[in-house]
Parts: sequence; structure tokens; C-alpha cells
Amino acid sequence: MTLQEALNKIKPLNKEIMENATAYQDSLIKPLGSLGKLEDIAVQLSGITGLLKPVIKKKCIIVYCADNGVWAEGVSACPQNITLSQAINFTNGNSGINVLSRLAGADLRIVDIGIAADTHCPAILNRKISYGTKNMAVEAAMTNAEAIQALEVGINCVEALKEEGYQLLGTGEMGIANTSTSSAVLMALTGLSADLVIGRGAGLTMEGFEKKKRTIEQALTVNKPNPTDAIDVLSKVGGFDIAGMAGSFIGAAALRLPIVIDGFISAVAALVAVRIHPGVRSYLIPSHASAEPGYQYAMDALRLSPALLMNMRLGEGTGCALMFQIIDAAVAVMAEMDTFEKGHLVNDFMVDIR
Amino acid sequence: MTLQEALNKIKPLNKEIMENATAYQDSLIKPLGSLGKLEDIAVQLSGITGLLKPVIKKKCIIVYCADNGVWAEGVSACPQNITLSQAINFTNGNSGINVLSRLAGADLRIVDIGIAADTHCPAILNRKISYGTKNMAVEAAMTNAEAIQALEVGINCVEALKEEGYQLLGTGEMGIANTSTSSAVLMALTGLSADLVIGRGAGLTMEGFEKKKRTIEQALTVNKPNPTDAIDVLSKVGGFDIAGMAGSFIGAAALRLPIVIDGFISAVAALVAVRIHPGVRSYLIPSHASAEPGYQYAMDALRLSPALLMNMRLGEGTGCALMFQIIDAAVAVMAEMDTFEKGHLVNDFMVDIR
Repeated sequence: MTLQEALNKIKPLNKEIMENATAYQDSLIKPLGSLGKLEDIAVQLSGITGLLKPVIKKKCIIVYCADNGVWAEGVSACPQNITLSQAINFTNGNSGINVLSRLAGADLRIVDIGIAADTHCPAILNRKISYGTKNMAVEAAMTNAEAIQALEVGINCVEALKEEGYQLLGTGEMGIANTSTSSAVLMALTGLSADLVIGRGAGLTMEGFEKKKRTIEQALTVNKPNPTDAIDVLSKVGGFDIAGMAGSFIGAAALRLPIVIDGFISAVAALVAVRIHPGVRSYLIPSHASAEPGYQYAMDALRLSPALLMNMRLGEGTGCALMFQIIDAAVAVMAEMDTFEKGHLVNDFMVDIR
Repeated sequence: MTLQEALNKIKPLNKEIMENATAYQDSLIKPLGSLGKLEDIAVQLSGITGLLKPVIKKKCIIVYCADNGVWAEGVSACPQNITLSQAINFTNGNSGINVLSRLAGADLRIVDIGIAADTHCPAILNRKISYGTKNMAVEAAMTNAEAIQALEVGINCVEALKEEGYQLLGTGEMGIANTSTSSAVLMALTGLSADLVIGRGAGLTMEGFEKKKRTIEQALTVNKPNPTDAIDVLSKVGGFDIAGMAGSFIGAAALRLPIVIDGFISAVAALVAVRIHPGVRSYLIPSHASAEPGYQYAMDALRLSPALLMNMRLGEGTGCALMFQIIDAAVAVMAEMDTFEKGHLVNDFMVDIR
């Protein structure tokens, strides 16, 4: 499916089934609205799937791995080849996302969308656009055609998972220096300043932190991304991982699958997707409030709010894995809770508190 | 175990094992501290259990059910006998807490600590202190001896669960008008005003809401609870459910079991327990930020912060059930994540980002 085909397929949620789902929630033995976001999520899932009682058995987190040319500027405390190492670890090790997705009953897809080396690892899906982006501090990170190609990688990953019967998706990433690219994209799309948005990432010194801010400001000055054209922003100061995730959000909306946002980088990718097509927003489920300062600004721009306050900043899709368990709870409430009609002794009483 | 025996048994967390657990967390393949509260919880569990890698297989939520004499003042939109009905529903129905605790793999104990009727239900543990408290708007809710008796019900419930091998506990309640008693206890212990603390509960009109505030202020004026004596506060303006939960927190600290706080009423009970013995605090794990306005003030007084932002206000222990899944994740990280030493390709690289 091409980007344009995916965008053409995006339709609003099913309002009629959502009204029925809300009415059904209100018939359950509890005060009206007292399960808060569990109710909101259940109603959203109804609107996405068209089912009054959504079923979620098969879940998958897609982890897009890519390198960023801007790493050469010294914006990260990490060697670039950690991207490669961790991508391989995800396929056979016990990294954070492996442990947490296993607990949540979710499968993983590890996608090389632009690692700066060959992985030689058959368990990693090879969708490499290039061996890393170019250095955005001196030129555009990628061409417009590459950006569209990376978005379509994300769309097609979702399409394949839909065909395999997956009913809930999550997005994760691994890419050294990708808090820099995400900050640049967020600043370009919102006009927010470096001081507000940019965090220290994984273990930068104060000197490194100042360097990171100056480098990102330079990338924006050099490339002059058009804030009203999200694909232009993505190509000039984004990354292949951000593009793959943004494509996944678009693909999920096109194919009517609920999809979970992880942390900061994932939230910026969601904002890119929503700026490309506002209809994507209804298909998004936020998870945890990342400890990265830019996260809240991305959520504000998306008009979404997280359900988990875990102070996490690992990425990899780890927040999605925790959120899958909350979504399971929302599904279980719809599937299993008694209504006032079915309720045993409460019929005469509980009706008064509705 | 008596209250005094329990208080004498409370010891600090094991600092040595917590230092080892922190060092072990720092050896896992992730940037330092990047799993946030999952790491904090794992270290706390180590300090409670004395195990580097805590094991949590058996989990239980104790739901204390009791009626409150102040109901007669019209502070609740609900008929009083919903307390009885829901207590019975918890034993055989599909109420919120049944569905969510089942999903979390947790058992339930339903305790009648003061329902204003006989339950005739063998699945409900009969620990009734009295058929509801007295009306705190005109006299003390209970005697000092009854308050201690109710605290000891909570302690002994925890003692029995410890003997049955439970490793993680949660607290829940069912008691019409218990947001009124909780608000009164919180106001007495903190000096906060009615306007800050009191919410509308389940479906009060504006008129009913004003009545609720005036009634609680009256209860404090009539009874003059001593703010430095938490048992005096509990007996004069509390409830049997709050006392049972407070006793559970004390018992869990005495017996070195981690115990989860649910929403507003549970948080107020935790504050009562901590005011009785400050050593209780280290054994507490908060769960969700209740939509009741007083919740945040109780958390501030406890110097704790919730992990879940679900906008829930059902009670019953439903927040604990969701939090159990997060605690499972914290345990899994310690049990399953690879260290840098065990890590496959990352040894040479990841060490740099620590």
C-alpha cells in the first residue's frame, strides 16, 4: 500500500457503535464513568473495530532501528554501534522490551529501517532505506523520496501484521541520537524553543547537553523545514525510525487497528502522522509520560494524555508493553463485567446512583 | 497479633540488599535508571523481602466492607444497602474488582467489618465490629476500643494471608458514604479545608454536595478529634473500612509484605497507619491517582506519588489490581533482563553509557 492509498483509506471512528458501547458501559454495575480511562479506551476500541465487545488476542510491538547522521556532531554519549548491538539483542536476548512484551503476551517485530551497518541477522526484518541518515546539522537528513519510502515501510509492516491477525499494535525504536532528531522535528512542527524541548538523553554531560541544543538549532537553521509540511520536516531533520513509526500510525488508521504510542520519539512520530492526516489521531492510544521534557509538548500538540507515570526513558516500546496490560483490562471490563440486569442483588439499588 | 505487637515488629527496609539491588539494576542492559519506577519498585521489594530478585506468585486484594452512620445525613446519593449488595456481588458476581483481579492473577478476600446487616454469605469473612458506625455528625463514629479492634481485624487478615503464602497485598473497600468519612479523617490529620478536600463522590447534586461539606465540618466541630492522635481521629470521624485498611498497612509492615494503596479512601487509611507508625511508609506502593480531589493531598502528606493516571473513582481495590500488573513487570525486569556481562554483542559498547 502506498502512502497515498493509506491516507485515502483513513475514515473516522464508528460513532454509532461508540454510542452503543458508552450505553453498555453505563449499564455495568458501577457508578457512571467510575472506571475512567478504562471506559474511554474500551469505547475507542469499539469505534476502531466496530465491535461492541472488542477482542484482543494477538498483540505486536514493532521496533524500528535506525542510525542518525547527526550522531557525528557529538550529541549523544553513546557509540553509534549500540543501535546495531541492541537490534540484535532484541532478537535473542533479554533486553527491556523482550522481558516486558513477553509479560504482556505481545510479539515483537524488529525492523532495520536504516542501521548504519549490515545486521547479518535473519530475525531482523531488512527494510533498510540507507546506512543511517545524513548529518542534519549540515544537510537534509534524507530526501523527500526516502521519507515517503520510510513512511511506506511503516505502513506495510502494519499491513503485514493485520494480515497475520494482530489486533493491537505498539511502536518502539532504537537509534542512537534519536532524541536529537525527535526534538528537531517537534521544534519545527510546533515552534517551541530548544530550551523547552531538549533533554539530556542518556547520560550527556552539561557540555554535551549545550552542544546538543546548539546542533539542533543549527539543523533547523541550515535546513529551514516548512512547519506546515510534516513530510518536509521529517525528511530534513527527522530519522528513518521516526518515519517508520509515523508510517505505522498512518497504516494502523488506514487498516482500523488500535496503535499505542511509547515515549518521546514515538509521540513525535505520532504528531508527524497526525499532521500528515488528522484522522490518524482517533486510532492512537498514549501510554507512559516519558521523562524526556519534550514528551509533554508532543502530547499537548496531539491533545492526548498518558495513563502511566513511570518516569521511564528507555524507549524500545517498553511503555507500550505496560500499556497493553491496561488495554487488556479495558477489554476485560467490557467482556466480563455484569450489567445491572444480570447483577444479582443490586438491581433495585444501584439504579439510583446512575 | 495485637496492634501493639504489630507496631513493635515494624523494622526499616533492608538497606544492604537494596544497595545490592540498585547495583544489579545498574548492571542490566539499559541506560542507568531508564526504567524509572519499575526499578524503584524492584528495589523496594528487595528491601521488604530481603531477596535480590523478589518472587511474587500469590497476590491478594482485601476488600473491607462497612457502613457509616453519617449516611443518615444525606451525604451520599446512594441507598445504604448497596454496601451489602456489592459485598455479596464481590463473592459471586462480575463486579469491577472481580474482573480486574482475575486478569491480574490476584485472589480476593471480602471482609464484613461493619456492614449494617447480616450478609448470610459464607464467602464473606465475618469480622463485623458493629452494624455500621454511629453518625459522626452527632457523636463519635466508634469508641477507641472499637477502632483498635478494627485495626486488629486488618492486622490479623494480613497475618492469615502471610501464613497462606501471599507475597503481595492490595487494599480495597466498599462502604456507602466513605468518601465523607475519609474526607473528615484527612481534614483532621492535615488541617486542610472542606473546599479543598471534599468531592462530589458518586453522583451528588450541588445541593447534596454543599450538605456533604457542612456535615463533615459539623462532625469535626462536634467531635474535636486530636490531630496528633491518629487513633482518636479514626475513632471519632473514621469508619470501620478505613480502620481495617489502616490495620492491613500496619500488619503488612510488621510482617514485611509489600502492600498497594488503591484510591482516596485507601490513601487516607495509609496516612492513618503512617501517623500511627511512620515505619509503615516504606512498605506502601501507591497505584492510581483517584479522581477524588482529596487523593492528591493524602499522597502529598504521605510523600508518595501514583504510577497510574486512569481518572478512576470506583474503589473496591480496582487500582491495586491494575498496579499488580506493573509490579509484575518490575519483578520480571529483575528476574529476566540480561546484565552487561551476560549480554551478547553489547559488552564492549553499552558500558560507555552507564
